[in-house]
Amino acid sequence: MTSELTGKVPSRRAFLKGAVAAGGALAGAGAAQASGDKLITEVQPWMSELGDGVDAAPYGSPSQFEANVKRRTVEWLTADPISSINFTPLHELDGILTPNGLCFERHHGGAAQIDPADHRVMINGLVDQPLVFTMADLMRFPRENQIFFLECAANSGMEWRGSQLNGCQFTHGMIHNVMYTGVKLKHLLDEAGVKPSGQWLLAEGADAAGMTRSIPMEKAMDDCLVAWKMNGEALRPEQGYPVRLVVPGWEGNMWIKWLRRLEVGDQPWHQREETSKYTDLLENGQARRFTWEMDAKSVITNPSPQAPITHSKGPTVLTGVAWSGRGTIPQVDVTTDGGINWHKARISGPSLDKAMHRFYFEFDWDGKPLLLQSRAHDSTGYVQPTKDALRKFRGVNSIYHNNGIQTWAVNSQGEAENVEIS
Amino acid sequence: MTSELTGKVPSRRAFLKGAVAAGGALAGAGAAQASGDKLITEVQPWMSELGDGVDAAPYGSPSQFEANVKRRTVEWLTADPISSINFTPLHELDGILTPNGLCFERHHGGAAQIDPADHRVMINGLVDQPLVFTMADLMRFPRENQIFFLECAANSGMEWRGSQLNGCQFTHGMIHNVMYTGVKLKHLLDEAGVKPSGQWLLAEGADAAGMTRSIPMEKAMDDCLVAWKMNGEALRPEQGYPVRLVVPGWEGNMWIKWLRRLEVGDQPWHQREETSKYTDLLENGQARRFTWEMDAKSVITNPSPQAPITHSKGPTVLTGVAWSGRGTIPQVDVTTDGGINWHKARISGPSLDKAMHRFYFEFDWDGKPLLLQSRAHDSTGYVQPTKDALRKFRGVNSIYHNNGIQTWAVNSQGEAENVEIS
Repeated sequence: MTSELTGKVPSRRAFLKGAVAAGGALAGAGAAQASGDKLITEVQPWMSELGDGVDAAPYGSPSQFEANVKRRTVEWLTADPISSINFTPLHELDGILTPNGLCFERHHGGAAQIDPADHRVMINGLVDQPLVFTMADLMRFPRENQIFFLECAANSGMEWRGSQLNGCQFTHGMIHNVMYTGVKLKHLLDEAGVKPSGQWLLAEGADAAGMTRSIPMEKAMDDCLVAWKMNGEALRPEQGYPVRLVVPGWEGNMWIKWLRRLEVGDQPWHQREETSKYTDLLENGQARRFTWEMDAKSVITNPSPQAPITHSKGPTVLTGVAWSGRGTIPQVDVTTDGGINWHKARISGPSLDKAMHRFYFEFDWDGKPLLLQSRAHDSTGYVQPTKDALRKFRGVNSIYHNNGIQTWAVNSQGEAENVEIS
Repeated sequence: MTSELTGKVPSRRAFLKGAVAAGGALAGAGAAQASGDKLITEVQPWMSELGDGVDAAPYGSPSQFEANVKRRTVEWLTADPISSINFTPLHELDGILTPNGLCFERHHGGAAQIDPADHRVMINGLVDQPLVFTMADLMRFPRENQIFFLECAANSGMEWRGSQLNGCQFTHGMIHNVMYTGVKLKHLLDEAGVKPSGQWLLAEGADAAGMTRSIPMEKAMDDCLVAWKMNGEALRPEQGYPVRLVVPGWEGNMWIKWLRRLEVGDQPWHQREETSKYTDLLENGQARRFTWEMDAKSVITNPSPQAPITHSKGPTVLTGVAWSGRGTIPQVDVTTDGGINWHKARISGPSLDKAMHRFYFEFDWDGKPLLLQSRAHDSTGYVQPTKDALRKFRGVNSIYHNNGIQTWAVNSQGEAENVEIS
């Protein structure tokens, strides 16, 4: 894991001029004399009182002071929380991983609660031998471990007609990035024996929505997984426990949760979720369909409307995330002046195929208003477009696949707002 | 991320002979007719009843069916749970990451509950300028994201005098592996300006134990981090919230939690935790000290005493974890016959410096008793030794740094037991 420092980093001692409460004339003194700050010179309660023992929490939870770090809903978006969305708090996270408890949810019939002992996965259709697997059967196949982002096709969907939601949690929070453990879908299909005419796969969920999507056999045989673990532990119920499909780089709706059936066929099934939904309605009334791949995209998570700058000026860390359904992200550009000057951001942490990347740009803020944008480049050479460039080709009727550049306007108080600039 | 397949993988169709409930003569039929298993042919409750909505859990939890996946204590190990240990359930995990809620705990005065607004980190001693940082100050420095294992020096400590604990959770569960986000310690020390005589660092925690350890300046300036996030979100209270030291590859006790002070000095401090504790008592009564680096080690997590084989014979997945405080793990060998034959295991997932690695060995079990062992090789060429080889040099008085090869005896029922063989 390398972390090449390509961004502008404040020079040594830059912080002494304001960022840090320095001990002044007390150089060389011990702790008790080093500062006028009583929080460091006096004994705090947690230093004199015993804390919780190791039997307090067999499964741990975040600090009480992190209660604000949570998935949030937007009430007016949907008619009922059973068929709805909540959003990952991207502005509260760092690094590349999404903790399981904070991965956004999208259900069409609520999160099914399944006893794994009673769950089965069937392969049928154009195969030599239909098969039914128990969870224990699946765990006897060779396993893979890979980190992938999952983005809902509707992420940023409310922004097609202009900036509407004030915070990256809401504009970009229908994404998460976790490590999956499971078996390659190819191994299971090979076990059943796909007939030559079997060119498509229907994946079906065991939830009350009976979610179904058609997947071309070429993708199924390439990099898809049937996974039962995320970030080391069992899938969470809202993410498909006990088993889900992983379709790397493709829209989240295809990653069938609570996976119960894989039917092999010779053509797509034209289900509801690939006709009336999850297709892109163009200006002329035609619908683009089979827009599976999620194009390169990025967003600045800090500062952002939910995460203002809290100091007056000086050294400031700008950070965000970038991803592409077509590969890795070798470069992210950022601007603080609405695109007059672009700077190469520093990418930190592993750069993995079809996974989230973390970028940073360290700069000296002069306390004046900013217009912040980020622009991702992926390993195919594709560059994230502006929202206007997308609208030119797609119109504004669509809900899905908005990967346009996001702008935050920061005022002199450090507060940020969702805006559009041309 | 590559996952090279070097192990023996059961050939296609191997599962048809027993592992999978095949649909028999029903090839080509639809779901309703494909199997005699009513769990797949009939509509299950979760398919006909709506599940939880997206407003049910702002911060999610594991499934009710995973209640057994938890940190466990061993009551007789310590006098009081306030100064004690619990253990990561390694046999329930897969991949390389440890979920935050399952990372083992080791406290000396309980887990401090600190309000980050009231927390400070001070640098004092042999520096040009003592400094006091708020959490907001720390977040204005350039950040790094890296995955590291943390192993308690006492992990496997009860095994020096023979096999005592029946389960890898207890024999090897004082380890976790997470992604940290923080600032390089070097940046903070450079900001204060370390004087030429400043060759050592004392790190001090803000817990009731006032945990302190001496760290050589060379390590502090190399790869240590001052970290505030683990696996993307804030540190958990029991892992040092709001800020901890990360000392890659070195024993866990040095990774000071609830970090409040870094004092620069010209020699080690000889604190309790580096004299009477965390030193290795040899046969002749002398104590080895400053045994900071955690040597290469591995353990088979499945099958193991808490995770028996549940089928009678046929395709079986053996898996485990390996790590080294000195680098990466290019190779793990496994044996199923107590060392007569060794096989190269398959390493799956990222291979990162000073981080946990996941290995697999797929084999056809004949239903006869097994003697399972794993042996890690690290990138320095070091090979994990037998317990007897370690005892020859260290005796059996020590508690710490037992990285010997672990043996599980599996009987014909698939049950495993902690044993030693010479």
